[in-house]
Amino acid sequence: MALIVQKYGGSSVGDTDRIQNVARRVKTYRDRGDRVVVVVSAMRGVTDNLIGLAKAISPLPSEREMDMLLATGEQQTIALLAIALHALNIPAMSLTGAQAGIVTDGVHTKAKIANITPKRIHELLDQGHVVIVAGFQGETREGQITTLGRGGSDLTGIALAAALEADLCQIFTDVDGVYTADPRIVPTAQKLDEISYDEMLELASLGAKVMQSRSVEFAKKFGVVFEVRSSLNDNPGTIVKEETKKMEGVVVRGVSLDKNQAKVTLVRVPDKPGVAARIFKALGDAAVSVDMIVQNISHGSGTPATDLSFTTDKPDLAKARKVIDDLKPEIGFGEVIATETIGKLSIVGVGMKSHSGVAGKMFDILAREGVNIEMISTSEIKISVVIDLAKAEQAMKAVHAAFIG
Amino acid sequence: MALIVQKYGGSSVGDTDRIQNVARRVKTYRDRGDRVVVVVSAMRGVTDNLIGLAKAISPLPSEREMDMLLATGEQQTIALLAIALHALNIPAMSLTGAQAGIVTDGVHTKAKIANITPKRIHELLDQGHVVIVAGFQGETREGQITTLGRGGSDLTGIALAAALEADLCQIFTDVDGVYTADPRIVPTAQKLDEISYDEMLELASLGAKVMQSRSVEFAKKFGVVFEVRSSLNDNPGTIVKEETKKMEGVVVRGVSLDKNQAKVTLVRVPDKPGVAARIFKALGDAAVSVDMIVQNISHGSGTPATDLSFTTDKPDLAKARKVIDDLKPEIGFGEVIATETIGKLSIVGVGMKSHSGVAGKMFDILAREGVNIEMISTSEIKISVVIDLAKAEQAMKAVHAAFIG
Repeated sequence: MALIVQKYGGSSVGDTDRIQNVARRVKTYRDRGDRVVVVVSAMRGVTDNLIGLAKAISPLPSEREMDMLLATGEQQTIALLAIALHALNIPAMSLTGAQAGIVTDGVHTKAKIANITPKRIHELLDQGHVVIVAGFQGETREGQITTLGRGGSDLTGIALAAALEADLCQIFTDVDGVYTADPRIVPTAQKLDEISYDEMLELASLGAKVMQSRSVEFAKKFGVVFEVRSSLNDNPGTIVKEETKKMEGVVVRGVSLDKNQAKVTLVRVPDKPGVAARIFKALGDAAVSVDMIVQNISHGSGTPATDLSFTTDKPDLAKARKVIDDLKPEIGFGEVIATETIGKLSIVGVGMKSHSGVAGKMFDILAREGVNIEMISTSEIKISVVIDLAKAEQAMKAVHAAFIG
Repeated sequence: MALIVQKYGGSSVGDTDRIQNVARRVKTYRDRGDRVVVVVSAMRGVTDNLIGLAKAISPLPSEREMDMLLATGEQQTIALLAIALHALNIPAMSLTGAQAGIVTDGVHTKAKIANITPKRIHELLDQGHVVIVAGFQGETREGQITTLGRGGSDLTGIALAAALEADLCQIFTDVDGVYTADPRIVPTAQKLDEISYDEMLELASLGAKVMQSRSVEFAKKFGVVFEVRSSLNDNPGTIVKEETKKMEGVVVRGVSLDKNQAKVTLVRVPDKPGVAARIFKALGDAAVSVDMIVQNISHGSGTPATDLSFTTDKPDLAKARKVIDDLKPEIGFGEVIATETIGKLSIVGVGMKSHSGVAGKMFDILAREGVNIEMISTSEIKISVVIDLAKAEQAMKAVHAAFIG
């Protein structure tokens, strides 16, 4: 008799049929004697619809009122799921985030969970109820309704599993689990049985964008083992947990390709202290996302100068260019080259830490495919390269074939 | 600088344009220095849509979960109205029923307000906010979300006006106020400047079904003077208050016609004690609404027997027939005659109390119109007759012309 926390996302509860499917799935766990806490998102489309109403009234609606508005989406789903469980003769009760004891800070639209007091959940479980909790939301100590921002429902699930010391935490989604690569690009991609938190974090951008990194970080911090699996079938999913010795035997766990980045290169940036700081401070102030940063070789003659490249999300490129152009008179660099036709290819695996030559092997494969490497960035468990977008999928397949199969 | 409570119904906040209209109207009161508390319903259609989702899952959804579900409708409107007020540079904050301090009993889907602790509303008003409160909902002492049932948002408005000791309570709707008769039937019907609580209650079924009687009863109990007016124009509405001497000068305040009733007559019911009680107890147990009851003259010969007639809402007629048929062997009456082609015509006015001959004049008018009276029922301030539906509108016009103009 295990205590299980299950989280179902917006597509899993997209309409009343799917909500009834979720109820049937919950019933199978109940029937075998488990105690079940279910966390649900808003029905697919509901949140976007509400945002549309707000934006029709004001381009910049108050964040406090957006939380008041958006929290209704999950509140509707919990009630409907409770009704669906009752129809299967399962005692069930729904709780808003506030009722479930989820206390957050006061940063509306992206609140952080401060603590969880699951007294009411325990009482209802003891009475034999399935407890259904609205994901994505909480309440401040002052009684203000808050939402947790993107990926908030996953976070609710993981955090409840931690607070309840659940035996199992299952994140149900519309994919079968975490794959070694995006199966739409690499047909030989395999579903992973298990993956470490750190690998999962590095693979955040892997084809199937399964989870936001904050939920994985939270799980890592509190040691919550969870399973990512499909709500559409009964296949086992991928277990995400702390790395094990066994995991380290595998050098590359997965290959990911991010096509959503753009590259900016500043040519002949004066090579003196404080210049890079000035540039990236200005980008940060303008809320431009910056991912990879590479400082290239210095130019030979004249005053010491260097080429500086960075990548940013494509939607941020125009903003980035504006910031850079504004800085040009002050810093005095040369040409600015921006390109959107790049792909960022990464290989990830905790095994890299104890295997040398992984980078060399990757570069060799790319060379044999005739792929030029424009930028390189490495971490303990990841190697990323920026390459021509036109050759990115071909490169991905070759790297996957060489390292994984 | 008055404290005003305004309530806007579902059609007044039917879409984002209308919500912005409401915001502009609230602004005009703000601009002249008033402190404003706004109570809103769910956007038209939202509640029905949610009920549809629940019924798609279960024919008899849990009332506790229906409250959880339906409370989201008003919560959406309050947030959107706050956003619309912010767009007009008006400081505003929305509160759910629970946040506004509305405590109810635990009877889900038709909770009664137990008390209101408007501390938070006062604080926000003192800070200069327009306070927007979700109508139709509250919270039990145990923290369960409840709804107040039909007409619940009006009740929230009236109850808040009482708790805040507001200077004015305005119920905005899609009609200009209370009329002497339904203008769609009687073109000469006039809007009333004022009406007493009791008249308003008796006229509940008057053409424009302006308000549920429970809100009027609540206003009467706590002496809340309120105005019923249109959210579509700036015309003054109808003030509803305790009767005054001036009101008593008018004999008939309004004429109403209810076409939604059916009549059932039991012929030759044994004329002995307990029989009527047995019949109406059985109807009550079956939740059949019963409005008028008339026991007709006894039949001349044989065992003492009487004809018993009552009216019920048309949708309840089949249920009523079943109850009556089931009772027949036990009680032993004769034929049962049911008809749906009736209309209930009423005249209402506190002035009747001090004017005699009103009933006689009404019956005389009907006789001159060739209208046969099938049932009569009177109260201190109302006379109702059941007549043939085919002649009901003609009769209504004649009675209105004779008493009002």
